[in-house]
Amino acid sequence: MHDAIDATHSDDPATLTATLALGRIRAGTLTVEALASACLARVESREPTVRAWAFVGSAIVIEQARELDRLASLGRFGAPHGLPIGVKDVMLTRDMPTQYNAEVYRGFHPRLDAACVATLRAAGALIFGKTETVEFAATGRPAQTRNPHDLARTPGGSSSGSAAAVADFHVPLALGTQTGGSMVRPASFCGVYAMKPTWNLVSREGVKTCSISLDPVGWFARSAADLALLHDVFEPEPDRRSAPAPFALAGARIGLCRSPVWPAASLDTRHATERAASLLREAGADVSDLDLPRPFDDLVDLQRIVMRAEGQGAFLAEYRTFGTALTESFREQVENVDRTTRAQLLHAYDTASACRSVFDRIAAPFDAVLTPSTVGVAPEGLAATGAMTFNAMWSLLHVPAINVPGLQGSNGMPIGLTLTGPRFSDRHLLAVAASLGALLARERA
Amino acid sequence: MHDAIDATHSDDPATLTATLALGRIRAGTLTVEALASACLARVESREPTVRAWAFVGSAIVIEQARELDRLASLGRFGAPHGLPIGVKDVMLTRDMPTQYNAEVYRGFHPRLDAACVATLRAAGALIFGKTETVEFAATGRPAQTRNPHDLARTPGGSSSGSAAAVADFHVPLALGTQTGGSMVRPASFCGVYAMKPTWNLVSREGVKTCSISLDPVGWFARSAADLALLHDVFEPEPDRRSAPAPFALAGARIGLCRSPVWPAASLDTRHATERAASLLREAGADVSDLDLPRPFDDLVDLQRIVMRAEGQGAFLAEYRTFGTALTESFREQVENVDRTTRAQLLHAYDTASACRSVFDRIAAPFDAVLTPSTVGVAPEGLAATGAMTFNAMWSLLHVPAINVPGLQGSNGMPIGLTLTGPRFSDRHLLAVAASLGALLARERA
Repeated sequence: MHDAIDATHSDDPATLTATLALGRIRAGTLTVEALASACLARVESREPTVRAWAFVGSAIVIEQARELDRLASLGRFGAPHGLPIGVKDVMLTRDMPTQYNAEVYRGFHPRLDAACVATLRAAGALIFGKTETVEFAATGRPAQTRNPHDLARTPGGSSSGSAAAVADFHVPLALGTQTGGSMVRPASFCGVYAMKPTWNLVSREGVKTCSISLDPVGWFARSAADLALLHDVFEPEPDRRSAPAPFALAGARIGLCRSPVWPAASLDTRHATERAASLLREAGADVSDLDLPRPFDDLVDLQRIVMRAEGQGAFLAEYRTFGTALTESFREQVENVDRTTRAQLLHAYDTASACRSVFDRIAAPFDAVLTPSTVGVAPEGLAATGAMTFNAMWSLLHVPAINVPGLQGSNGMPIGLTLTGPRFSDRHLLAVAASLGALLARERA
Repeated sequence: MHDAIDATHSDDPATLTATLALGRIRAGTLTVEALASACLARVESREPTVRAWAFVGSAIVIEQARELDRLASLGRFGAPHGLPIGVKDVMLTRDMPTQYNAEVYRGFHPRLDAACVATLRAAGALIFGKTETVEFAATGRPAQTRNPHDLARTPGGSSSGSAAAVADFHVPLALGTQTGGSMVRPASFCGVYAMKPTWNLVSREGVKTCSISLDPVGWFARSAADLALLHDVFEPEPDRRSAPAPFALAGARIGLCRSPVWPAASLDTRHATERAASLLREAGADVSDLDLPRPFDDLVDLQRIVMRAEGQGAFLAEYRTFGTALTESFREQVENVDRTTRAQLLHAYDTASACRSVFDRIAAPFDAVLTPSTVGVAPEGLAATGAMTFNAMWSLLHVPAINVPGLQGSNGMPIGLTLTGPRFSDRHLLAVAASLGALLARERA
């Protein structure tokens, strides 16, 4: 049915998960160059259709691959050694342009890496190319990327290219950012895993800031183990990188949080949520409703206030430098056409902060909290990237959120579910995500 | 007594405040090139002694000055038109290297401006050079800068060069950052004004991050009006840039906050605080004690926890990229030798946040809150830059803090006082700072 799914049946190294590819590289049965070449070939055949990339430098990729093979031949392996990774085109890369899908930054190419890119590079990852984004990872010009599962549909945004490139087997891994729902939503629409870690787990130096209180750096992959692999690259302390032990769903405590925005859920989302809960129960999990207290009803609105108010300063330099050449939606944000007040912003800060500790407390008894990832499956068209309705609250709460794929809507399009929990429960959630992902995959098989 | 003070008696344009220089530039009685040349000459004569600069590019300065004079001849003036500004060497500049006073970044020169630099450049400021900093604006290698008032003493840190360059009449304005007390402390030690605005008023894109919840971008100047001039450059909304109306101290309500760390205050600090309160009363102000409730006692310790815990991720990329070439204190921070836990970090976040709204409320009835800037005058030696004891709490509370100079310790060294208030009361505090500054200057005259 889908090219993306067909690809899994081939022997193409591009279809391997990061973890499987890494195992072969370490065992000496796959070279980094062969993996990189397979990914480049996949991009060459699919990119004209999917349009996930703002920049891929084949020569840069092969040069990196050969150097990583040379290190491997000396027994020097980094944790994500040789794994090709797409970098959302709002993150600086010393060897590739960074253009934000913005006219005013066409050809922009400062020679430095964002901290997240530098960290991956130092760990031996292969910086593969720049993935398409909605302009400045915000509003404005949409990405030209198409959903690999249905080319007439959006892959979601703003991390459009990262989600599509991973879903379509161009690369096993990609970086993204999320101010509202810019990782979890496209992951749900494209049927891949994504992880938005706890706020500020990963440095945002060198990443375009939309909202400093919201945007985290996160990543996309095709398995929960692959998400964990990248998580551990960004985890400074070895003690906090627990081995990916299988998590037993039998006896697990899962909080089912339909959330205050449940009325916005489509039938597909309702079915997916209830189906996942039912499968978890069949697997022996204790699934119980987690209802959020009254102040949480306001968090979706408050996320928007923070995003708008902080965006005012975030785009001031572009506003002053580029004037009317800057896309209108960003000019409007700097000019505060919404008339968001600073009193509203402070109220949003303080309410969100109070809710963070409340949520940590009420989520603590659960192994994970299950909640919808999106209003429904990917909508038709490329101009709109879908709503952040089910993501905004978790972004504002600073909690980790993992999209687990596996289910489908009535039209066969992917639909994901979110696992969340208290701040810094990231590593435990990854274990739950692996088990839930396996459960949903069995359902589909 | 001090070279720095002698300079004010000359006709040297370098000794003008930014506001006075701007008036002459606008009136056509001073060219930008003449001002820039005067500043360059001052640097040439004083830099071997004061060592405030990591980089000054005379040719770049003159080239910018001539272009700004050309624009002026066309009647095109920016708000801070032609004013030379020093940029702390932790902020990216497209035409000058950025070296963080770190061996591992020697010669580092990516071709882009930090957002704050781009905003100033677009507004017509003259980007003059890079000021010395303590390594990465944190710990590690101290700046080589000397206090212009006594060369055997520290100018304070980490914005050492910015404070000294402004105090010693190299430039009328300079940018800084403050995680603990890195602007207010050097301003107090060097006898100049400094403003740490409300958290996130100014974008930190392109500025080395130590602690995302703390570090603001701020600035140094030799008058409160000059601080306001830069404030308004960074204020997106015209409505929020009130004219610098004279603020009447008669009838003003001033909260005197000795703060929970008052026992650490030296005799000089005690005298300066009480003297300022007494002068304010004589001027007709209603000065009353503002005592902070119990949870505020912990904020100095909690600021340290946030700084240490967030620094772990902030320096991860350098740790992984440079290994043992990175200065030990940063390696220790990434390795968390303090064993700061994430539970401690979350407790610090949540307590600080709760205190922010409490402080906004209890400070609201006052026109400003008066509190010490430093433990005492600048200590002797260059290795240690003094304690952040009296600054840490205000950094964690996200409130604006302005150092007002004018008083002296028993040895004649400058000692400043801090005005603070609720978040986003920046513009009002600037008006109070102008009046308090004038009052203290009369005292000295």
